[in-house]
Amino acid sequence: MSKVKVYVTLKPSLLDAQGKVIRVAAENLGYKDVASVRIGKFIEMEVNGKPENIKTQVEELCSKLLANVVIENYRYEIEE
Amino acid sequence: MSKVKVYVTLKPSLLDAQGKVIRVAAENLGYKDVASVRIGKFIEMEVNGKPENIKTQVEELCSKLLANVVIENYRYEIEE
Repeated sequence: MSKVKVYVTLKPSLLDAQGKVIRVAAENLGYKDVASVRIGKFIEMEVNGKPENIKTQVEELCSKLLANVVIENYRYEIEE
Repeated sequence: MSKVKVYVTLKPSLLDAQGKVIRVAAENLGYKDVASVRIGKFIEMEVNGKPENIKTQVEELCSKLLANVVIENYRYEIEE
């Protein structure tokens, strides 16, 4: 069984409305030094099988299910 | 300006309903090897100021704004 960590982030060219709200909220709480905030997803998975198969599966899962590749980027780490 | 990466995850003892849905969806797509999925948040921030001040600010922001410490854990990395 391998542990897989996936990071899904909005493409840099797109406005991150949720991040903007958090930046303003931080400012209102007195944290004026926060210049920008961007929100993404962090997904931890446990995947059975041989390491050589896992990479293919994770790549497919990311592009089909976990990320919307039109607006999001993803990267992943596989820990054996 | 420092780049800060924050990872917010649901506490391990709690049921992750969203993760469960994704695990079942993966199974239905034919990925039977996915044993478990847990979903968290990944937050990228740019914070101005001196490195020694940034750690305190990030710690406070995490516990007050970014994570619900009753049900979530957080960890962060500060890149200078």
